[in-house]
Amino acid sequence: MTSVSFTIIHQDKATKARVGEIHTPHGVVQTPQFFPVGTQASVKALTPRDLRDMGAQLVLANTYHLHLRPGEDIIDEFGGVAEFMGWHGPTMTDSGGFQVFSLGVNLEHGMVKFLKEEEAVHEKEAKPRLNKISEEGVLFQSHLDGSSHMLSPESSIAIQEKIGADLIVGFDDLESPLYDYDKTRESLELTERWLTRSLAAQTRTDQLLYGVTHGGKFEDLRLQSAKFVDEHFQAVALGGAHASKQNLYEVVDWTTSHISLEKPRHLLGIGDIDDIFEGVERGVDTFDCVTPTRLGRMGVFFVHGPTGTKENRWRQDITKADYTHSHEPLDATCSCMVCKTYTRGYIHHLFRAHELEGYTLVSYHNIAFLMNLMKEIREAIQDDRFTLLKKDWMGV
Amino acid sequence: MTSVSFTIIHQDKATKARVGEIHTPHGVVQTPQFFPVGTQASVKALTPRDLRDMGAQLVLANTYHLHLRPGEDIIDEFGGVAEFMGWHGPTMTDSGGFQVFSLGVNLEHGMVKFLKEEEAVHEKEAKPRLNKISEEGVLFQSHLDGSSHMLSPESSIAIQEKIGADLIVGFDDLESPLYDYDKTRESLELTERWLTRSLAAQTRTDQLLYGVTHGGKFEDLRLQSAKFVDEHFQAVALGGAHASKQNLYEVVDWTTSHISLEKPRHLLGIGDIDDIFEGVERGVDTFDCVTPTRLGRMGVFFVHGPTGTKENRWRQDITKADYTHSHEPLDATCSCMVCKTYTRGYIHHLFRAHELEGYTLVSYHNIAFLMNLMKEIREAIQDDRFTLLKKDWMGV
Repeated sequence: MTSVSFTIIHQDKATKARVGEIHTPHGVVQTPQFFPVGTQASVKALTPRDLRDMGAQLVLANTYHLHLRPGEDIIDEFGGVAEFMGWHGPTMTDSGGFQVFSLGVNLEHGMVKFLKEEEAVHEKEAKPRLNKISEEGVLFQSHLDGSSHMLSPESSIAIQEKIGADLIVGFDDLESPLYDYDKTRESLELTERWLTRSLAAQTRTDQLLYGVTHGGKFEDLRLQSAKFVDEHFQAVALGGAHASKQNLYEVVDWTTSHISLEKPRHLLGIGDIDDIFEGVERGVDTFDCVTPTRLGRMGVFFVHGPTGTKENRWRQDITKADYTHSHEPLDATCSCMVCKTYTRGYIHHLFRAHELEGYTLVSYHNIAFLMNLMKEIREAIQDDRFTLLKKDWMGV
Repeated sequence: MTSVSFTIIHQDKATKARVGEIHTPHGVVQTPQFFPVGTQASVKALTPRDLRDMGAQLVLANTYHLHLRPGEDIIDEFGGVAEFMGWHGPTMTDSGGFQVFSLGVNLEHGMVKFLKEEEAVHEKEAKPRLNKISEEGVLFQSHLDGSSHMLSPESSIAIQEKIGADLIVGFDDLESPLYDYDKTRESLELTERWLTRSLAAQTRTDQLLYGVTHGGKFEDLRLQSAKFVDEHFQAVALGGAHASKQNLYEVVDWTTSHISLEKPRHLLGIGDIDDIFEGVERGVDTFDCVTPTRLGRMGVFFVHGPTGTKENRWRQDITKADYTHSHEPLDATCSCMVCKTYTRGYIHHLFRAHELEGYTLVSYHNIAFLMNLMKEIREAIQDDRFTLLKKDWMGV
């Protein structure tokens, strides 16, 4: 048993949405919750103080990136990633599988932008080169220096134990959304063997290990995966490929219907506002995504309705010339530090002038916006009015 | 008369150093003081909140840059630069002359890096193209879009009145350090005519207009310039060229000896730690320089002795590999937020990983370091032990 625990505080009457708390050695995470991503142990353009001030509760870092730089041994020397980055709060790492696979899948199918990729604004780094998948694990070459590395269930867990996050994820094989049924099933079966080995490899008792569900777009494979993970793990991360937004919601539905209610569910790499509402409604507790900070560095900011709608994805672009004279904050109904302090006109100037402060301000607002949204969602579930809140936001 | 005033609180017995206060409509500036530079109305990689937290009291912005982008009319719409940038505290602008001249002088003498140039880390912008100097003023082409602009005493003051800083600077001609005596004298005479026109052009009474002293490396020209500025202005900015560090200190000595004691003296664009001590000793009240933020973006940070010395300019480089395992703060005796929160090992990682947070943290420390130094200097002067403090730091 792990010393990390999950408690459900309130279950919505009309939907699968629920309010809960994850208790970790580094503090409490209230759910539903969104996790900002700090790929390289830094949430880009922000400081831990910013994150605390806006109410962020957990930072997700990437095992692949931290393994290559600075290396898990160094993070371990500093007492784990939360201490290393001066955050000291709850953290999560992924398995590393996503990053090492994403290029392999892309190459195989000639797909260019299938999967997310987290890079610094001006960084022109290559992606990892996938050499070989075997029963043992994945052999790949570093995108930094070309050096060869093996990532396996055992090494992924060993690395994640040294990185020392409170929530960690079992090592999985990533299917392509273009795989046919048989290929997806083969991939799922490999994932199941790797998850079993991941469980066996765990030695620390103060980290909650999430099993990852896969099965692509196929309902029976998704059910099989959900049941397998539910049988062996205390926490469930929804991963793998989906065919469309509609299929993503089906996948979430299929999966959460076959996971014990008392287990926390994390939806990996998803964080659009409509996806958050649809996911929470289907019983997802936590989300992570690079979107708020990546958009922030491009000058794209979130806005409430009526300006923000499902159609424009609640997004506006500060680099547009018509903000030059605007004395308004980014979002008139937002209470974050940026919206209390700065005008759209000034932030527009910062982006025109390529000032780093611009990246900081819009990234700050975007994460704060999601923190406030998650708080609104938790309060609505508590008051049994989640469906109304969702209608308010989604316009349907 | 202007509503900005300067008061001397304590005069050192042994040297020309003094403690004072500049009272502006946006707040009080305690002197001796160092002004961080926010070239484009943003101190690079930092926010106004950071600046307030570390005790910064005045931000200097560049008239040339703000005239071209976003333009003084827009800043005026927002209530002036202090409000535009969300700083709300005291501000200063330079005359714009420095930037438009620096390339002209460089071209003329085939000099490459004679003068400072403030650019964003990744920005590859060209420099202004100087077209023609006449009695009227300077015709130049924008480094942004090649558009033609005229900067004259009248337009510089009009622009600075719209930008709305509390301290502004009269328009001046910039001599090259390679000019001979006659050419330097001609340049000084043009500066004097332009300063007279700058004075006549001023219409606002809530801005303190600094006259600029010139005269290159020549003592009698420096004396002439000091007397001229002292006769006509309530505040003195020391500008122009010098031949060496030693000559810079002579220039300061010659100049401050011929300026009325009650007038504030600003040393333009100078801010190395030894220069601050030598300047304060010779009666300089305020300094500005891009060094702490530019070094910050390169990973170079200030340290106290015994590690920091006059020889290494109190500088260390965080990108060096031997900081990988360091659990120490940037500077063991520094009390700033960065030194209380982060290790050298983590900041080293941020620079290796090209994370924007690294620029923020080292820039923050460097300015905070200078803010603490200036406070130490003010307290030492108050206690009549400035000479001892200077010896402590300089090791002589």
